[in-house]
Amino acid sequence: MSHVIGLVCRECGTEYPHTIQNTCYECFGPLEVKYDWDLIQEKVSKEKIAKGANSIWRYADLLPVESEVRVDLGAGFNKLHKADRLGAEIGLKNLYLLDESVNPTYSFKDRVTSVAVTKAMEFGATAIGCASTGNLAAAVGAHAAKAGLPAYIFIPDSIEIGKIVQMLVYGSNVIAVSGNYDDANRLASEVADMHPDWAFVNINIRPYYTEGSKTIAFETTEQLNWETPDHVVIPMASGALLCAINRGFKELEKVGLVQESKVHISGAQPLNCSPIASAVINDTDVIPIKDYETVAHSLAIGNPADGYYAKEVINNSGGFAAAPTDEEVIDGIHLLARTEGIFTEPAGGTTIAGLKILAESGHIDSDERVVVYVTGNGLKAQDTLVNSVRHPTTIKPTLSEFEKLLKLQNSKKETLQKEIIMQKQRRNLKNGKSKIFVCFAEYNKNKRNQFGDWTNYNKRCIE
Amino acid sequence: MSHVIGLVCRECGTEYPHTIQNTCYECFGPLEVKYDWDLIQEKVSKEKIAKGANSIWRYADLLPVESEVRVDLGAGFNKLHKADRLGAEIGLKNLYLLDESVNPTYSFKDRVTSVAVTKAMEFGATAIGCASTGNLAAAVGAHAAKAGLPAYIFIPDSIEIGKIVQMLVYGSNVIAVSGNYDDANRLASEVADMHPDWAFVNINIRPYYTEGSKTIAFETTEQLNWETPDHVVIPMASGALLCAINRGFKELEKVGLVQESKVHISGAQPLNCSPIASAVINDTDVIPIKDYETVAHSLAIGNPADGYYAKEVINNSGGFAAAPTDEEVIDGIHLLARTEGIFTEPAGGTTIAGLKILAESGHIDSDERVVVYVTGNGLKAQDTLVNSVRHPTTIKPTLSEFEKLLKLQNSKKETLQKEIIMQKQRRNLKNGKSKIFVCFAEYNKNKRNQFGDWTNYNKRCIE
Repeated sequence: MSHVIGLVCRECGTEYPHTIQNTCYECFGPLEVKYDWDLIQEKVSKEKIAKGANSIWRYADLLPVESEVRVDLGAGFNKLHKADRLGAEIGLKNLYLLDESVNPTYSFKDRVTSVAVTKAMEFGATAIGCASTGNLAAAVGAHAAKAGLPAYIFIPDSIEIGKIVQMLVYGSNVIAVSGNYDDANRLASEVADMHPDWAFVNINIRPYYTEGSKTIAFETTEQLNWETPDHVVIPMASGALLCAINRGFKELEKVGLVQESKVHISGAQPLNCSPIASAVINDTDVIPIKDYETVAHSLAIGNPADGYYAKEVINNSGGFAAAPTDEEVIDGIHLLARTEGIFTEPAGGTTIAGLKILAESGHIDSDERVVVYVTGNGLKAQDTLVNSVRHPTTIKPTLSEFEKLLKLQNSKKETLQKEIIMQKQRRNLKNGKSKIFVCFAEYNKNKRNQFGDWTNYNKRCIE
Repeated sequence: MSHVIGLVCRECGTEYPHTIQNTCYECFGPLEVKYDWDLIQEKVSKEKIAKGANSIWRYADLLPVESEVRVDLGAGFNKLHKADRLGAEIGLKNLYLLDESVNPTYSFKDRVTSVAVTKAMEFGATAIGCASTGNLAAAVGAHAAKAGLPAYIFIPDSIEIGKIVQMLVYGSNVIAVSGNYDDANRLASEVADMHPDWAFVNINIRPYYTEGSKTIAFETTEQLNWETPDHVVIPMASGALLCAINRGFKELEKVGLVQESKVHISGAQPLNCSPIASAVINDTDVIPIKDYETVAHSLAIGNPADGYYAKEVINNSGGFAAAPTDEEVIDGIHLLARTEGIFTEPAGGTTIAGLKILAESGHIDSDERVVVYVTGNGLKAQDTLVNSVRHPTTIKPTLSEFEKLLKLQNSKKETLQKEIIMQKQRRNLKNGKSKIFVCFAEYNKNKRNQFGDWTNYNKRCIE
């Protein structure tokens, strides 16, 4: 007997059998997987999970897969780091982070793709596909290769060859479409319609695919000795990841693996493309954005499919949102690297910058047990950072040259530190900033959203 | 009571206390860690390991560290993949691979650095250092950041800024030395002498550092249900990694975690810089090489410090060596990616190409349980591959354009497959290649090294 009953429309509740399909024929709403929760509760246990694979497949009883054959490159079950040094810098006493840059193709997309390609094999699909500009393409290429199926990856033709070697090396069929991502995505959808035996991970088998993300909630909780965290901070593009992680926490409660799940769920989006974050901060509807330009390419979705649901999850859970500037995003990358030794892409920088804003504004309490999700690695975004790193000094290979450099650096460092302390003191004296921060935080914790964009509010107070 | 007794000279056996030191004052030989094996045997157990950290630190009882404080970014305990698709292509029925590209900074150097920086903290070091051109620098930068210590990384000034963003982003002090790697390394050694409280991972605390590599043997065996493999294939630069992995297998036997360890140990080195591999293949001394140019930069050490020992390990274990050309190295990268979905750097390509040579020449038996170690990731070497990948075709975003492309690709594929089969048949008919391969393999298994470089021998036979 299977624990997967079929598919169900998120909008109108119409039920469908368990096949390759992603849209409701009645109302065009998105479909979700419907599980037999009683059966799952019988099957699942902490002991069974502990003995399972060293990957997302340790949670197989909670995933929409029936066969024992899995396309498993080892995605997931990544280490939950206690991030004391980062926590100290931003005033959080119990901060953890899950580093998704150590997945097989270096982003969280390996989780969703591993589930999708496994499901595709179960359905007897003859090819794997996707539309993507980066992380997803790599994940699809790798998992299709492991499965021995051809991959068809649709990309906008503006991406330079040097940047897409990874997706090409797996032997994928990469098709460059003259146009932007939307054109590539539309064509991929048409191809999916035309080839019903091809599984497009983010199109026609999307209901199964999105289930892969909730494993993040499972492994966070397992690594906290089966206690859910107090607060999590999640990057948002379409909002699907945030919704899936929320679902993951709820499901643990549903099947009795945790007593109670009361997780505050907060999201981060780059200011220049922040339809969901803005809607949360200003308490408006999610308003699609047409023109945007941000360094956080992998979060740049102007019309987020799950935006409405993501906002609801955030509000219902008592979380909040943050929308850092591109400059803050880059600072976030550096902050994470120099405190915790983790090198992330701009999406991760957005999340760390968002965490910092939420902590400093008091939306996250300093005592809360907080988990932040860093979803992709920085190697793919080295170009973005070339101008923000301290370029190396060249010296002759002699000891005296090095000692001279060292003295110079140390005296510079001392001057800089003194200057930073003085600047802070001046600023605090001038406008009572620290007082405002505390007041605002106190106030805001009780009456969120009252002031619209808190950053602007705060700026007004300080200026 | 500590399980670390002190240091001992590998050459003359002189013993030293447990401090920051790497060279014997008597004979200038390299020092190794001396353990109390009886004490370790009392402490260590499979059950204790199973409950340990999800990283190399699950084997802490076998590592040269005494304190409970560890600089742990999650290096190691990576998944051992059953590589059936790669195995099928090269004729091995029981092939596994350990993917080291999913370590925190994406190479096996995280293992050694995690041990070295932890040890440095134990010694109260005030800074971390290394000389490096890439993988090690990143590992050192990250672990020093996590430890909250400054890092001094010495690199040759020829490395372009775009390629060293990763090491810079952790906030390391990167010093470019006008000269080559040897100049950088020499200066780093002088700086280490001048600053005895700075721990240079591959210089003054090298004896502890190299111990990190043997965890590869431990986790291979643990994941094979505490049975050692029949054969392993390891990339060689200085030869230190190969020696450490061999030591790891022997230690498991010593402390009773396995009954008997009879692992054939083989090594791979790029042909253009293959002092150790050539010495094994031609049964000569290890002859240093001065001028070399290979795509496998991270394996390019002309005068390998552990070359003599590596050759001895290979010979004593009944392994062999392979030295693929740069072209075969690139093919190895593609072969691994398209069969197993793992994207490796040229060092990994060397190992896969070496594995292929050893399997096809019969130095590895098709029934042996073989483990191959892929030690670093491909993202850092995208430039090298740009010319070897199939560039994407650009089409207009319409279904008909795509279907036209698909038909064209399929007909090309069919023609190509027919051509490959015909070519193979022609070749086999012409020179009885398959016969020669089998004969040579049979012969060679009994009387290795007889023909010097088998590739050349084989070429002579075929041409």
